[in-house]
Parts: sequence; C-alpha cells; structure tokens
Amino acid sequence: MSRVFNFSAGPAVLPEAVLAQAQAEMLDWNGCGMSVLEMSHREKHFASIAAQAEADLRELLDIPSHYKVLFLQGGAYSQFSMIPMNLLRGKARMDYVDTGDWSSKAIDEARRYGDVNVVASSSAGNYTSIPDQASWQCDPNAAYLHYTPNETIRGVEFGFVPDAGDVPLVADFSSTILSRPIDVSRFGLIYAGAQKNIGPAGLTIVIVREDLLGQTVPCTPVMFDYKVQADNGSMYNTPPTYAWYLAGLVFKWLKAQGGLSAMAAINERKASKLYTAIDGSDFYHCPVDLMCRSWMNIPFTLAKPALDKAFAAEAEQAGLVSLKGHRSVGGMRASLYNAMPEAGVDALIHFMQDFAQRNG
Amino acid sequence: MSRVFNFSAGPAVLPEAVLAQAQAEMLDWNGCGMSVLEMSHREKHFASIAAQAEADLRELLDIPSHYKVLFLQGGAYSQFSMIPMNLLRGKARMDYVDTGDWSSKAIDEARRYGDVNVVASSSAGNYTSIPDQASWQCDPNAAYLHYTPNETIRGVEFGFVPDAGDVPLVADFSSTILSRPIDVSRFGLIYAGAQKNIGPAGLTIVIVREDLLGQTVPCTPVMFDYKVQADNGSMYNTPPTYAWYLAGLVFKWLKAQGGLSAMAAINERKASKLYTAIDGSDFYHCPVDLMCRSWMNIPFTLAKPALDKAFAAEAEQAGLVSLKGHRSVGGMRASLYNAMPEAGVDALIHFMQDFAQRNG
Repeated sequence: MSRVFNFSAGPAVLPEAVLAQAQAEMLDWNGCGMSVLEMSHREKHFASIAAQAEADLRELLDIPSHYKVLFLQGGAYSQFSMIPMNLLRGKARMDYVDTGDWSSKAIDEARRYGDVNVVASSSAGNYTSIPDQASWQCDPNAAYLHYTPNETIRGVEFGFVPDAGDVPLVADFSSTILSRPIDVSRFGLIYAGAQKNIGPAGLTIVIVREDLLGQTVPCTPVMFDYKVQADNGSMYNTPPTYAWYLAGLVFKWLKAQGGLSAMAAINERKASKLYTAIDGSDFYHCPVDLMCRSWMNIPFTLAKPALDKAFAAEAEQAGLVSLKGHRSVGGMRASLYNAMPEAGVDALIHFMQDFAQRNG
Repeated sequence: MSRVFNFSAGPAVLPEAVLAQAQAEMLDWNGCGMSVLEMSHREKHFASIAAQAEADLRELLDIPSHYKVLFLQGGAYSQFSMIPMNLLRGKARMDYVDTGDWSSKAIDEARRYGDVNVVASSSAGNYTSIPDQASWQCDPNAAYLHYTPNETIRGVEFGFVPDAGDVPLVADFSSTILSRPIDVSRFGLIYAGAQKNIGPAGLTIVIVREDLLGQTVPCTPVMFDYKVQADNGSMYNTPPTYAWYLAGLVFKWLKAQGGLSAMAAINERKASKLYTAIDGSDFYHCPVDLMCRSWMNIPFTLAKPALDKAFAAEAEQAGLVSLKGHRSVGGMRASLYNAMPEAGVDALIHFMQDFAQRNG
C-alpha cells in the first residue's frame, strides 16, 4: 500500500526523504562498497558519519563548546539511573518536578540512589497542568533539579524553562527535542531517547555540561559513567552505529527545512490546527490546560467513548494509524513530531470532522 | 563501486540477501505503509517481527523452554556489569577464566561487585593458548564460572565447553554465536553483542536460565535487571527495534543456509583454507596454538612488519578491507563470520600469495 500517516508516540514517523536516502545507501554508502551497518566504528567511514552528525546537532541546537554530546544506548529509562549515579556528586538530595507518567518513573528510579524531593506535582489534577513555579519547594542544596519538558502520554508541555538558580537543571527532552530552539546554556544536562523526534529507537542523546562529569557513585557500571563515554567520544564500546547514522540524516533534513526556528513555526501551526478543530467541536475534547498543551502529543477524547474502537479502526482504513491513546489514559492521541507532514494533520482533521458528522 | 569483501571484526559484514531485503522494505514493511523504523513496539506489526525473531533463534540454537531470550542494548560491556549484579545472588566470589583482552575486561568490571577468582590465565604465553581445564583452580561455591569461548582480538577459541559442575557457566559468545551448534543446556547464561556474527550494532542477545533471575544487588539500575527485562519480553522500555528486525532477517537467512550444522561445515572449511595458506607459507605466520585457533577471527603477521601498511593498502585496492590487526596486537586479522562468502576467503588467499611472491 502507499505510505500511511503514522501518529505513533514512538517509535514514530521518519521523514520520507531520510528513509529514501537510507534505502539508496543500504548496500553501498558513498561508494565505499559496504553498508553503514557493516562498518567498523573505528575506521574512517563511520568516523566521518559520527563526527558530521555531532557537528550538525551542535549547529541545530547551538550547543556551547563546554557541553559534551553523547550518543548512548538504553533509552530515557537508563538515564533515570545514570543521572543520580553521576550527578549526585556527594550530595544526598535531588529535586524533581512531577508532571506526569514519565517524571513519576524518573522519580521512582532516582529513589534507589538518594533522597528525592518532589518540589511540585500536578497529580491531584490528573496531570493536565503545570504547577506554577512560584509554588515549587526547591532545595538550594539539591544535587540537581529534574523536570520533563513534555509529557508524551498526557500531552503536557512546559511553556517556560524553570529557573533553577545555581542548581544544575536536568531535563528529559525525549518527545520535544528539536521541535523548537532550546537555550542549552540554561541546562546542566539534557537527554532524549531518539525514537520520538529524532528517529531510530536504540539511540539516546545526552548533552551535558563538562564540569558535572567525573563523580559517580561507587557501584556505577562503567557503561553508565558519562565521563568514560565523553572521554571516548561515545565509543568506549561499539555504539549503535546505524541509529547514529540515521539520526545524522535527520539532522541534515532539519537543516534543509531551515533549522529549529523554521520547525517551531511549522510545529506550532500543525498543533494549532488540530487544537482548533478539537476545541471547535462538541464531539472531541482535549483535557489539557490551554497554557500547557503540547505541540508534539495531542490527546483527545470522543463524546461517546464507546466509539473509540470504531474511530481507530476507520482511521486506520483511511491511512491514519496509531491514534489509540496510551493504555493508561484511553481515548486518542495524535503525535505530531517534526516528521509528520502538515498534510497528515489536515487529513486527520478532515477524518475527525467526517466521523463526528456521521456519529454525532 | 561494487561490494567489497569486509574482514572487519565488528561491526561486520552482513549477508547481501539480508541487506537487499532490508532495502526493499525500507519505506513499507509487508504492505503496512510504514518502515520498521517507524513502528510502535507495542503494536501488532512489530510484535510479530519480534516474536518471529525469537522463535527462529530458539530453533537455530535449540534453546530449552526454561531459558529466557532477551533482546537488550549496551553491548557485552554492559553484560560485564549486569552479570555480577544479577548472578552474585548473595555469594561473594565469582570464577573467571582469563584467555585474552575480552575476558580481562570482564574481570576488571566484575571486581567492582565482588571477589573475582581468576581460575586460570594464559597471559604468560601472550594469550595464544587455552589453559588445560585440569589446571583450573575453581571454587565450588563460586556464584558462577565465566569464560570467553572466542577471543575476538587474538583469535583464540575454546574447542570444548568447560565442566563447571553445579556452578552456573556464563559465556561471552559475542564473536562465535551462531557459527556452530551450542548445547545451551550446559550454560547458566550466554551473551553476545550482535555486531559480529548476528549483524547490527546496538543489540545484545542474552540467553539465561530462568532460575537464576530475580536477585540483584541493591544498586542495580532497573534496566540492568534481567528479571524486569524477561518479565516484559525485553520491552520494559523501547527496545532497539530495527536491530531486532535485522537480527531476525539474519536468523531466517541462517535457516535457509541449513542451520548451524551447515554453517559449522562452511565455517570450518573457510577457516581451514586460510590457516593452510598461512601455515604453508614462509611469509605469513599465525601465533595461535593449533589446538585453539578461532574459526571466526584469524590473526596473522607478515615476515617483514614494515610491509604491514603496504599489505593493508594494496588489499583495500583489491577490494579486501578492514584487515589491519587490532591496535593492541598489530599485524593483520581476517574475521570470517557467517556472512563472509567463501569467495571472499579465496580472494584473500589469492591476494596473500601474490603479495608474498612480490615481496618475499
């Protein structure tokens, strides 16, 4: 069949141009007679791919030179452990903001390594808002302040970067990285599983300020030591080479789109269209506060939950797939990552209006 | 250019038929309208890919039902930590056999978690042999006995499976898995980074006996807990989906070749040809004892080390690439994994004979 519009929250849609290039190069990269999949990570071909990907990411996010960029494995879940293991640095307490499922998971894992201070939580409101920073109970002696700029499951996104004072700010950007510019200098550490807004599963990007490295807790596995990874250019052992290459193709594609300011304009327009369609209808409803609606993950419910199954099935027939909401929330969710074409959003809105008319 | 013969130790050559299928399916897997790279790991398409890959691997290795098969990230280096963290099970001491660079690295990392008893070492002989098991100083109360069936760097391979008695036997099969049948029931745990004899970097296969799971040391990151991974079908978080799919294509290809007995015959023939050519020449030399020469990684030196550079450069011109020995050893190394066609070995031998004639 022809290509569908894939609204999966991750792994997720990739730019068709990136897939086409990967396809063309599958048996022979750049005339070298082998696939990227077959290249030793210690030789010149892959070295050039790896270096170019890092340079392009640094350019896209304007990453200052005193930050290291790491290409790791293990997903955000591994970061949930690596962050306390590396950033506690002799301190006992860590500050966490709880705004949904992913921040809660980060908190649970951090508790294995020290005393977690939950500075604020939106759980009482079913995670549909962001607590006003004026109400946060931060500890000025905390090892770091952790938050989740975008909650993939419930579609809640911070419209601001928290002020952490002198405490290093740590952020899980898995589902919103590269969707708009970030001022990296505000952060101690940024991490992101690649399988949402970068591309391939099996790659995790970490951007970390150099001065925070080198003080792990004693039982830290060598692979979980940021300094070891940084000192070895993310090649202490064999990195996930093909995922690194694909991420590099996505970075090049983003540059060709005009970079992150251009992506921000497109992403805001795509999300606004869908929110407008939802809010303008009596049939659909988005539970998230107006002030913190995600550009990337848009949950919505139907007036008649009994129609959820029919909606998802008919949408799939129309080439609009993976719209079912997360199993913990129900309803629907449309993820509109960078690689989702605006035509996909238009097609979804058209389908939604037609479905509402037939079933309203 | 046309495809080269790639003798890299890993990441390494893949079967051309596998690459061609991956290429054909890159934008649309099985008519579903999306790439495997874009599939949610929670939905039906990837679920079928994942289950089929595991079933094919179980069939190839005849894995008993009381063993779990895990598809993880992080490479053998992560296993160096995960094994003591999971398998110590309240014991204080672990037995390790030291036969080369990779077993040494495993030993260094294990020392962070308990008392390592090196039962035997071939370091005095520069790691060119396997110590006779009669000389090993094993501890009957050890948590497990760890060894490295094939040392990728120096090309030393065990011709036998050690007798560990009631102590669980743990083996790093990274560079020899699937090259011949293994009696899995002899082992407590088998692990292998995929980037040598399976295919894609970024995937690690673990085969572990169920009764060994569930007793981690307190500081174990959740992602390093085998039981968590096993209870969640290796999908506690997003797995490396594309690498899992590619491994599945390799498993299908191996079945089409006739399975592991057929591969063993081919691998023995390929390796014998090259060893015969080396041993029959005054110009080339293999330092490894006859009794423990690897089928997969064949190191050799030139009579005049000053010619190493010319050898590697002229070989590359002839389409024979990645022959340079590991930086810690020097000389040359030819890795003859499953996916190396016999024609590649023939071409290498022809080149070696010609080079020797011109420079002898």
